[in-house]
Amino acid sequence: MSEKIRGGRSRRELKNGAGEVLRSPCPVACALDILGDRWTLLVIRDLLLGRSRFKDFAASPEGIPSNILSERLGRLLRHGLAEQVPAEDGTMRLGYRLTEKGRALGPVLRTLRDWGLKWEPSTEARMK
Amino acid sequence: MSEKIRGGRSRRELKNGAGEVLRSPCPVACALDILGDRWTLLVIRDLLLGRSRFKDFAASPEGIPSNILSERLGRLLRHGLAEQVPAEDGTMRLGYRLTEKGRALGPVLRTLRDWGLKWEPSTEARMK
Repeated sequence: MSEKIRGGRSRRELKNGAGEVLRSPCPVACALDILGDRWTLLVIRDLLLGRSRFKDFAASPEGIPSNILSERLGRLLRHGLAEQVPAEDGTMRLGYRLTEKGRALGPVLRTLRDWGLKWEPSTEARMK
Repeated sequence: MSEKIRGGRSRRELKNGAGEVLRSPCPVACALDILGDRWTLLVIRDLLLGRSRFKDFAASPEGIPSNILSERLGRLLRHGLAEQVPAEDGTMRLGYRLTEKGRALGPVLRTLRDWGLKWEPSTEARMK
């Protein structure tokens, strides 16, 4: 059965760019379906800081487990937030870089950073 | 043993306002330790929209399960993002409202909303 929501549209019709059904039409809920966990925005932070390789993300001080990192990088690709590019070291390895959709998360990262800096005194900024 | 991080400080010394050990001094990581899940920022969205009672949050279109809602409201209280206040209906029930620290998440919600609206065409705004 199709669950009806505000405006009479079927919930089944509401999907994000990766074809996943949305919980609601709310853009915050949709964003959190993609970004709402402890790690995804940290990988995007690292990409914004210019890191591109799996081992660079894994070396960040938070110590992301490699299985979670693999899953999150796959999610970034699936949602069009990042793309794979040849590694700059000339090897056959692939690196990652943000797409325009991924770079557009810069303001989200900055507001989260500013909030943390103001309200959690143990934190320090590195990203400008 | 005490794990040393950049600057020679002990990781044990880095705690957030609720006394939980931080993954790193990064303010984004610290913010995500509190907010990094699919639901917490939706409860804050509802509080910013003026909702105050458990049943109001539970009635939002995303359909938050009541056990998760209870846990998240407890987390907001523990981290000083919300406080309990007498319900406006004159009953003995308690409602919730944001503290200054919680209201300061408004810009985070707005940047997430703006990103969702721009990059996920199935979404629609209600929060100004």
